[in-house]
Amino acid sequence: MSLSFSPQAVLVDLAGVLHIDDQPIPGALEALRRLRASGLPLCFLTNTTRSPRRAVVAMLRGMGFELDAPEVLTAVLATRTLIRQRGLQPYTLVHPDIVEDIGPSAQAPDAVVLGDAGAHFTYERLNEAFRLLMQGKPLIAMARNRYFREKDGLSLDMGAFVSALEYSSGVQAEIVGKPAMAFFHAALALLGVGPQVVVLIGDDVEDDVGGAQRAGIAGVLVRTGKYRPGDESRTAQRPALVVDDFSAAVEAILARV
Amino acid sequence: MSLSFSPQAVLVDLAGVLHIDDQPIPGALEALRRLRASGLPLCFLTNTTRSPRRAVVAMLRGMGFELDAPEVLTAVLATRTLIRQRGLQPYTLVHPDIVEDIGPSAQAPDAVVLGDAGAHFTYERLNEAFRLLMQGKPLIAMARNRYFREKDGLSLDMGAFVSALEYSSGVQAEIVGKPAMAFFHAALALLGVGPQVVVLIGDDVEDDVGGAQRAGIAGVLVRTGKYRPGDESRTAQRPALVVDDFSAAVEAILARV
Repeated sequence: MSLSFSPQAVLVDLAGVLHIDDQPIPGALEALRRLRASGLPLCFLTNTTRSPRRAVVAMLRGMGFELDAPEVLTAVLATRTLIRQRGLQPYTLVHPDIVEDIGPSAQAPDAVVLGDAGAHFTYERLNEAFRLLMQGKPLIAMARNRYFREKDGLSLDMGAFVSALEYSSGVQAEIVGKPAMAFFHAALALLGVGPQVVVLIGDDVEDDVGGAQRAGIAGVLVRTGKYRPGDESRTAQRPALVVDDFSAAVEAILARV
Repeated sequence: MSLSFSPQAVLVDLAGVLHIDDQPIPGALEALRRLRASGLPLCFLTNTTRSPRRAVVAMLRGMGFELDAPEVLTAVLATRTLIRQRGLQPYTLVHPDIVEDIGPSAQAPDAVVLGDAGAHFTYERLNEAFRLLMQGKPLIAMARNRYFREKDGLSLDMGAFVSALEYSSGVQAEIVGKPAMAFFHAALALLGVGPQVVVLIGDDVEDDVGGAQRAGIAGVLVRTGKYRPGDESRTAQRPALVVDDFSAAVEAILARV
C-alpha cells in the first residue's frame, strides 16, 4: 500500500505514536528528524487532558523530540477557547495539573467541563457534575477516548466517565478533542491548508484515523500504542494506509513528497 | 383510571415507594397494613446493592414496615444465585457492606461482577475491572439504574459505571436486577403466580414499570421517589395506572379485590 497523493502537511498524534509513557517508540526520534528535514509543516494533536501543554512539550523534549509549543494542539486548549468564546463559567471536573490551562471551577457554574481526571474521578465529584446536568446545564467533554496504553497495560480513558454521566443524566456531551471535526479543522487552520492535502498519523483507528477521515484528511494507522490486531477492519471507512510504526509512516509520506 | 383486572399478588419496589432514605413516605406504613390485611401475597423488590438483605429488612422494620426477609428479593441475591449456577469466580466491584452476601473477589477471576459501590467506585478499581473485560471476561451487573433520590437530591446510581465500563471495553453487561425479565420472573416464582394477575408498584417508569410490563405484569407508577413530572409519557408502553403515592396505589388495588 502507498499514499495516493503528495502530502503538504502532516498531523501527528502523540501518545502511542511517538512515545509510550516516557519512552520514545523505536525509530520515532530519527523519523521525526527526517520528517522535519522535508520541510512539511507539522501539527501535533493530543487528547491527553491530564497534563498542560507546557508539560506535554517538556516531556517530549525530554525524550529528545524536536517540537515547539505552538505546534501542539491539545484538547484542553481547544476547550479553553470554546469556553471563552461562549462566555461560560463551568464546573471543571479535571485533573489538578491542568487547572493552569483551564481555570478553577466557578462558584455558580452554568456548564460542566470534563477532562481526564484519572484517579481524581471520584464518586463525589462525578455526582456534583451529575446534579448540574440534571439542572439542565450542558456537558462539554475534552475528549471521549475509550482507553490508552500504559507501561503495564491498557487503562480507562475519560470516555468512560463521559458515558457514565450521559447515561445517568440523559444529557449528550459535546466533544471538543478528537474525533470532533472542529478539532481537526482547528489544526488545519493552524497549518493554513485544506484537508485533501493532509495526512494524519495515529494509533487509534476510531478517534484519530476515523475522525480525521470524516474531516476529509487521509488517516495513516500505526500498529503501536493502543493499536490492537484487527483494528484496521473495525471501522466502516478503512484507513488510507496501515503501517508498522511512525518511522514507516514517515517513510511512506516522504516517498510521495 | 383504575385497574382492569383483579390482582392476586403484588410486587412492591422499596426505595422511593415505601420510603426515602430512613423516612417512610407519608401514608405508606398504614397502606402496607391495609394491603397485608387483604391477604394478597407480596414480594418486595430492590435493586439497592449498597446493603445486604439483612440490613434492608432491618432498616424497613426500623421505620415500622412489617415484612420478612424471605419476602424480599434483592438484585444482590439474584446475582449470587446466577454466579453459583454458572460456577463463576468473579472479581467483585461492590460496596464493602454486601461482601457478606456476594463473597470476596477471586484470586484469578473469570468474570466481573458490578454492584453499586457508591463512593467505593474509584478509578483504580474500575480500571482493574476494565482490564479483565479487555481479556474477554464477561460483565455481570446487578443493576443499571440511572439515579436514585437522596435527602439532598438525585444521585448517580450504578448504571453510570456499567455504561462507563461498557463504553471503554466494548463488552455488553448482563443485567441481573430490574428491569431484567429474569428478575421479575424470579419474583413470580416466589409468589407462585403468573404475570397476568400481578401488579407492580414502582417509582421508576423505566426500570420498575417498564421492566414489569415487558414481563407481562401491570405496572403502577407512583409520583414519589425518583418520579419526575412527565415520566408517565416518557416510555413507549404507558403505565397501567399512575397514582400519587403508595397509599393511592393500594387503594386502587383493594378496590378491585
